[in-house]
Amino acid sequence: MKTAITPTREEDFAQWYQNVIKEADLAEHSPTRGCMTLKPYGYAIWELIQQQFDAELKKRGIQNAYFPTMIPLSFFQKEADHIEGFAKESAVITHYRLKTIDGKLTVDPEAKLAEPYVLRPTSETLIGEAMSRWIQSYRDLPMKLNQWANVFRWEMRTRMFLRTAEFLWQEGHCAFETPEQAHNNTMEFLHLYQNFGKDILGLYSFIGEKTPEERFPGAVHTYGFETMCQDGKALQSGTSHDLGQTFSKSFNIKFQTKEGDEAFVHTTSWGFSTRLIGGIITSLSDDDGLVLPPRISPYQVVILPFLRGDDQKDTILKACEDLKEKLIAQNIRCLVDDSDAQSSDKMWKWVKKGVPVRVEIGIRELENKSVSCVRRDLGKASKTVLSTTDFVSQLPTLLETIQKDIYDKHKSFTETHVEKVKTLKEAEDLFKTDSFMGFVLLPIEETNTEDFKRLVETYKISRRCMPLDMPKHVLIAKSY
Amino acid sequence: MKTAITPTREEDFAQWYQNVIKEADLAEHSPTRGCMTLKPYGYAIWELIQQQFDAELKKRGIQNAYFPTMIPLSFFQKEADHIEGFAKESAVITHYRLKTIDGKLTVDPEAKLAEPYVLRPTSETLIGEAMSRWIQSYRDLPMKLNQWANVFRWEMRTRMFLRTAEFLWQEGHCAFETPEQAHNNTMEFLHLYQNFGKDILGLYSFIGEKTPEERFPGAVHTYGFETMCQDGKALQSGTSHDLGQTFSKSFNIKFQTKEGDEAFVHTTSWGFSTRLIGGIITSLSDDDGLVLPPRISPYQVVILPFLRGDDQKDTILKACEDLKEKLIAQNIRCLVDDSDAQSSDKMWKWVKKGVPVRVEIGIRELENKSVSCVRRDLGKASKTVLSTTDFVSQLPTLLETIQKDIYDKHKSFTETHVEKVKTLKEAEDLFKTDSFMGFVLLPIEETNTEDFKRLVETYKISRRCMPLDMPKHVLIAKSY
Repeated sequence: MKTAITPTREEDFAQWYQNVIKEADLAEHSPTRGCMTLKPYGYAIWELIQQQFDAELKKRGIQNAYFPTMIPLSFFQKEADHIEGFAKESAVITHYRLKTIDGKLTVDPEAKLAEPYVLRPTSETLIGEAMSRWIQSYRDLPMKLNQWANVFRWEMRTRMFLRTAEFLWQEGHCAFETPEQAHNNTMEFLHLYQNFGKDILGLYSFIGEKTPEERFPGAVHTYGFETMCQDGKALQSGTSHDLGQTFSKSFNIKFQTKEGDEAFVHTTSWGFSTRLIGGIITSLSDDDGLVLPPRISPYQVVILPFLRGDDQKDTILKACEDLKEKLIAQNIRCLVDDSDAQSSDKMWKWVKKGVPVRVEIGIRELENKSVSCVRRDLGKASKTVLSTTDFVSQLPTLLETIQKDIYDKHKSFTETHVEKVKTLKEAEDLFKTDSFMGFVLLPIEETNTEDFKRLVETYKISRRCMPLDMPKHVLIAKSY
Repeated sequence: MKTAITPTREEDFAQWYQNVIKEADLAEHSPTRGCMTLKPYGYAIWELIQQQFDAELKKRGIQNAYFPTMIPLSFFQKEADHIEGFAKESAVITHYRLKTIDGKLTVDPEAKLAEPYVLRPTSETLIGEAMSRWIQSYRDLPMKLNQWANVFRWEMRTRMFLRTAEFLWQEGHCAFETPEQAHNNTMEFLHLYQNFGKDILGLYSFIGEKTPEERFPGAVHTYGFETMCQDGKALQSGTSHDLGQTFSKSFNIKFQTKEGDEAFVHTTSWGFSTRLIGGIITSLSDDDGLVLPPRISPYQVVILPFLRGDDQKDTILKACEDLKEKLIAQNIRCLVDDSDAQSSDKMWKWVKKGVPVRVEIGIRELENKSVSCVRRDLGKASKTVLSTTDFVSQLPTLLETIQKDIYDKHKSFTETHVEKVKTLKEAEDLFKTDSFMGFVLLPIEETNTEDFKRLVETYKISRRCMPLDMPKHVLIAKSY
């Protein structure tokens, strides 16, 4: 059977991934090295993710703020682990002026900065410095901030959405009186990520603590929200860090306690990024292109007029517009594609863009006051004809069903691709099998060996996390 | 009479401005040179501006996208006027790695970029390059894009909100088949800015074309949206540019016409920034601090429990919470300040934060099922006591009235500070009078003289725009 995307996932997953992005018109490589341009359709998905997550933040009393992009170099010097983690991939501003020399625009050598600036790879340092001034007493605590921003990491090998030199994200930064409060906040947002994945993004996930090797630079505990791609690789889709007193000590964030003593605060940070869209592609899409869960689909329904010549063209178009009005009145995002393109081209366009429900209205539907309706996640086989009235009244439930089915499918895919083993030997047997793809759950003690290091090298695998509901095990996988 | 902000506007406008920002907790200077940190209350105002303007964009078929922050240096070389305008204030990335040398973190000299990157001062170049690939035929036109982003201009003298090295903005970029369409788009968004100023921001404005000296680098026509500060200075609060074929020729943005010919598109760009918040302060606030129009106030109503000791404390707090629930049910943003602070400190806090309506509930109000209500824009004199039921039912209208009154006051202030004169001599007589503050409308021909240049130097004035409704005149003023 012909697929809309070639190669297929099975034939060449990496190329399939690129082509899904291209055909859905989500993004493209930019002339800026390692960066991508988020095209309108891709950005619209990010806006829906943002809006819905921001509402969750506001419910939880998190306040948005905005800190500068340029961080003085000396700030990185203050946190040794942090330097270690980010120094190798920093975009550095050294000059503040251009000049035309011999007709060629160039950096003005006389405009060199006394202190260079680093484009934020993350903002613990700058926010830590601010907190050291903003927090004076226990009355100022907890302080719960978030920032929606662009961040920069000079990655050598880039891949759209998954790893680029610039990306968009949210970074939460909170400060507390006690270690328990910081721990609870870390866990609260880890669970929020998992639930947001389930309810909004259609993504099943594992959440758990990272092993020390995989910790965020400066964190005491790092927790990951890991999802499975359809090639069996793991994608770190969000992280939540208990930073203990690392940054409060580096940046002197002290407060006066209720008892009048002075103490360092306990901080946390947690974030997810536009990488989530990469996860939606790798985890949920198929050989016909993007599959979008309704909650984050820029259009939940596309209405296609099926015209044969000019016969009843105006009446069919009017029926399409009438239906659209009815759906918009129900707060359903929808679109009538009345462009001049061929009907089948239009159909494939919206298939590749992953719109959850496709409605067709032609002469027959018009005569019967009905619509033909196809679910993107199930394809042609799901085609049903129902009365327009029934379609309108059933659509909200249908969208919820699709949302849930997409999640359930990913959950079931993931669960059938996780193997729990007892020994490293068993793990190696799996990874060396060509046909194996997926995650392996291995007892922790099996990972503290020289043999495990060899496996990591040989099979390009890594420790993803120690799942919360699977104590004493580490999730091992290849990853993006 | 004691004012909440000292010095007052009259005593020292610049210092008053800084203190309003500080006391309302909107923003602060950052350790990053020339940059500010938008604190939660300031950022919440920006979010409300964004949400409401974004809805206007979506109504008009504008699509949001996101382009990289780092622009290759060579892109600036392609547009000579553009270089001229931005070269002197560019933040330049020259390296991509840090390294610890002798224990000191420093720029790795071996990680020098072959081509430096400039942090976007605006995105015509990068978006122009993208449009040259995205636009092939008349079918791809019009193309209407917008980006919400951070931008960078290495300003030497900075002032919070008004002029900083980094700020947040929206930049619209559109491409059309004909010059008429580009002109109409330029005017559409100029008028939208003015109406948005009127309906949402409480700002009266002049809109008009900029004189050639004040044009955006590369524009054929630049139009400004200019507001008056209470010290009589002008603030450029938004601009809309008809870029003609400047960028389509520099970046080769061609399309095939309906007739099969090849032609360059006509482009526009238009933007406003966090500077608007500076305008709200300089134009609308008073000696007691910030005054916010209800449409952009993070809280439209603050409810203050007036407690004397513990007498009926719980009952009063409950009445406050009940009222809050009723207001939230009407989609009114409100807050109960049940903190431990003294009643008068609380009152002043919210006065300085500019919340439009302050409600007080104490024992007397509780007994009478009433509330005391004060308008921020009118102050104590507006205090009224009314039944809780009446207050709740009248509040939506009251907020609309306040919104309109704030605008009307600014309009009236502006109108009484504009002098229309016939000659340069008359203009000079005004500017040399110590007591004069405001705008001067001068016939265009009077500004094309050496004498006018002298005035510009002597009185630090500039041409703001040629108001649309005042043809053949130029608006002259001191400015921020």
